[in-house]
Amino acid sequence: MFIAMNRFRIAVGRESVFEELWRRRDSQLEGVSGFREFHLLRGPTDEEATLFASHSVWDSRQAFEAWTESEAFRKAHAQSRAPEGTYLGHPEFEGFEVVL
Amino acid sequence: MFIAMNRFRIAVGRESVFEELWRRRDSQLEGVSGFREFHLLRGPTDEEATLFASHSVWDSRQAFEAWTESEAFRKAHAQSRAPEGTYLGHPEFEGFEVVL
Repeated sequence: MFIAMNRFRIAVGRESVFEELWRRRDSQLEGVSGFREFHLLRGPTDEEATLFASHSVWDSRQAFEAWTESEAFRKAHAQSRAPEGTYLGHPEFEGFEVVL
Repeated sequence: MFIAMNRFRIAVGRESVFEELWRRRDSQLEGVSGFREFHLLRGPTDEEATLFASHSVWDSRQAFEAWTESEAFRKAHAQSRAPEGTYLGHPEFEGFEVVL
């Protein structure tokens, strides 16, 4: 089991714009081999930003990586972006292997 | 749904000590109201440390917080600690609400 997370720092006040983008997004994940589930998570807020994380669960790292090289992935990531000033910095990817 | 994560930076070379501590640990989580599942996750490694995260899924933030105030929580956290030099810095807690 493998969990892929992308961490986003979203400017305070822009949270609903960001959530709406994800709500409207066609993730292209249904039916992808090895894909189990997806959630968008909202974490803590500091003075300037709210932490969000995309959180997807896969059978294995191999299944996740195969998806990132697919046409479905390209399509999902070619969709509309948030207005300037929404993101503080670049998203940070973290992949996790399930140990226990 | 709520996801509670604690992030640990573990010195390179000490990963197996850390994993073994968690393997032997009695989490006291079974049967706790609102608890769904627990995993220990192993993330990326940089020059000095490997990122680990404890990852527990709950019905709600309220259920998680009630557990942190319980006797079961106190017991689970009174167990043996890793040897000095295992942890680089303090664990960082992040709680996430499921948006989508």
